[in-house]
Amino acid sequence: MNTIEKLQNDYNRFLTQNSFEGSPGNLYDPMNYIMSLGGKRVRPLLSMIGNQLAGGDILNGIYVGHVMEVFHNFSLVHDDIMDKADTRRGKPTVHIKWDEPTAILSGDNMLVKAFELLINYTGPNKDAILKTFTKTAAQVCEGQQNDMDFEQKVDVDVESYLHMIQNKTAVLLGCSIKCGALSANCNEATSNELYDFAINMGMAFQLMDDYLDTFGNSDNTGKIKGGDILQGKKTWLFLNSQHIDQQKHQELFNKENSTEKVDEIISHWQDIELDKKCIELIEDYNKKAHLNLEHIEKNALDTQLLIELLNYLSERQN
Amino acid sequence: MNTIEKLQNDYNRFLTQNSFEGSPGNLYDPMNYIMSLGGKRVRPLLSMIGNQLAGGDILNGIYVGHVMEVFHNFSLVHDDIMDKADTRRGKPTVHIKWDEPTAILSGDNMLVKAFELLINYTGPNKDAILKTFTKTAAQVCEGQQNDMDFEQKVDVDVESYLHMIQNKTAVLLGCSIKCGALSANCNEATSNELYDFAINMGMAFQLMDDYLDTFGNSDNTGKIKGGDILQGKKTWLFLNSQHIDQQKHQELFNKENSTEKVDEIISHWQDIELDKKCIELIEDYNKKAHLNLEHIEKNALDTQLLIELLNYLSERQN
Repeated sequence: MNTIEKLQNDYNRFLTQNSFEGSPGNLYDPMNYIMSLGGKRVRPLLSMIGNQLAGGDILNGIYVGHVMEVFHNFSLVHDDIMDKADTRRGKPTVHIKWDEPTAILSGDNMLVKAFELLINYTGPNKDAILKTFTKTAAQVCEGQQNDMDFEQKVDVDVESYLHMIQNKTAVLLGCSIKCGALSANCNEATSNELYDFAINMGMAFQLMDDYLDTFGNSDNTGKIKGGDILQGKKTWLFLNSQHIDQQKHQELFNKENSTEKVDEIISHWQDIELDKKCIELIEDYNKKAHLNLEHIEKNALDTQLLIELLNYLSERQN
Repeated sequence: MNTIEKLQNDYNRFLTQNSFEGSPGNLYDPMNYIMSLGGKRVRPLLSMIGNQLAGGDILNGIYVGHVMEVFHNFSLVHDDIMDKADTRRGKPTVHIKWDEPTAILSGDNMLVKAFELLINYTGPNKDAILKTFTKTAAQVCEGQQNDMDFEQKVDVDVESYLHMIQNKTAVLLGCSIKCGALSANCNEATSNELYDFAINMGMAFQLMDDYLDTFGNSDNTGKIKGGDILQGKKTWLFLNSQHIDQQKHQELFNKENSTEKVDEIISHWQDIELDKKCIELIEDYNKKAHLNLEHIEKNALDTQLLIELLNYLSERQN
């Protein structure tokens, strides 16, 4: 078992021992259900690594990471309602397994519990952690609203799209590692550098999502090839294609959905080298993330851990 | 202008000067919209009075009261989605004026902002206020889930109903006055007595709501007479009627909705003296609230204010 897996196991054990308790069951069961669906636990991992890098008490790192995971899962429950998603990690979403009102309310209570956990936190830098987390929570809401607004908008510029994915996804990763580091009494400069590291890593991760949906091997991703194209989703690829050649773009997307349409768009995007440009941008963010690490005074073990994590997340095929 | 009105005006002025600012507009506009719809501002009033009773800096009382009002309005936005309510205070609800996803998300952000405000609070007893508020927030969620569960349940006992309305409504009133008092450095015993006072006041208020819907003069309430009866709503009256004579109760409620049905049920409830018993229970809670006040060391002005508020809320006809 490598170190990343060991940390994941540590967190999952903590989670099992710290499930939500309360009544009525219809409020608390959905909260424990969504938390138990698994996933890579990237946010707790980041908090734990941030904490270890700064030489802290790992229990504080796990605790802070748990807050981030609870908040993340709150956002999943509510996003799934908004997106009308039926499944999450192969299981029915909360509003499908229960109903929408229950999903709204148990999500609300998860948000309350995330704050409650932090308010009861007893480690170092409580105030700074609370402030970082609260600012991040509002940014995540803003990012999600931007995302919904963009679906209605004809002309979204690429900068706004990058800003949106930064808020919707990357800032919580930044917050996770920063708060983990703060929980180990890390100084401000280093914890901010770690924040930037995770932002860059998050941007690379999110753009890779866009890339793989279109150019990935669907045997590896397990998704329908060109799912984003068929949905007309405003991804980085879509928006760039729209700005590079609006007429051609419209012409292609106006066609009826079919495998041919997907192939034609993919081939057009390869002609205008969008695949290459997307990978370049991802590599750019990854490079920035590595630079952030170089700026940090660190001991060998912990840098190794972050690089492991970076590779674990960026070298995936799905 | 009496003192209650003056305090309401003070709060409303504070609110105007402290509207939410942020982008995107589709996230922040609904937040300011719901806050601007008005109402009696009972929660800020309670915080301000709690603060003044303990001789504090009124700015802290208003600030804490604002947090309570933001939280209350968050719960209204989400409750209105769950209840499929089209209007609130004569205006379209947020999910009608915008849409459901926007209502979910701007509600979420109001909850975040309520915590953010408290985290940035600089007055006395920050930690105790944060803990009281967080506990209350979870109780409100629990009460709302209980309420939804009860709608599906055939046999709800009266004690569970009283517990539900305590969580759904009364605890936030208790929290408002307690935190207001804490913001004035009030001692624990007195702030807890004030909490109990507001709980009792809240229970009386909520039961009066049930009473007036059925036995009130609809010219005064502005509502359809027997609205709760026509909806088959599980009120204190409904549940008692069910337990006193299940067969008769079912027989009456099985009838098609009509004015005759409403009149027959009202007349049956008067026969079994439910109107009288409900008023007795309300008076009982009001008496307890007055007793709480007697237990508090106070100066004449401030007790007067709470009694004014109690009368303002309990002597209404609508």
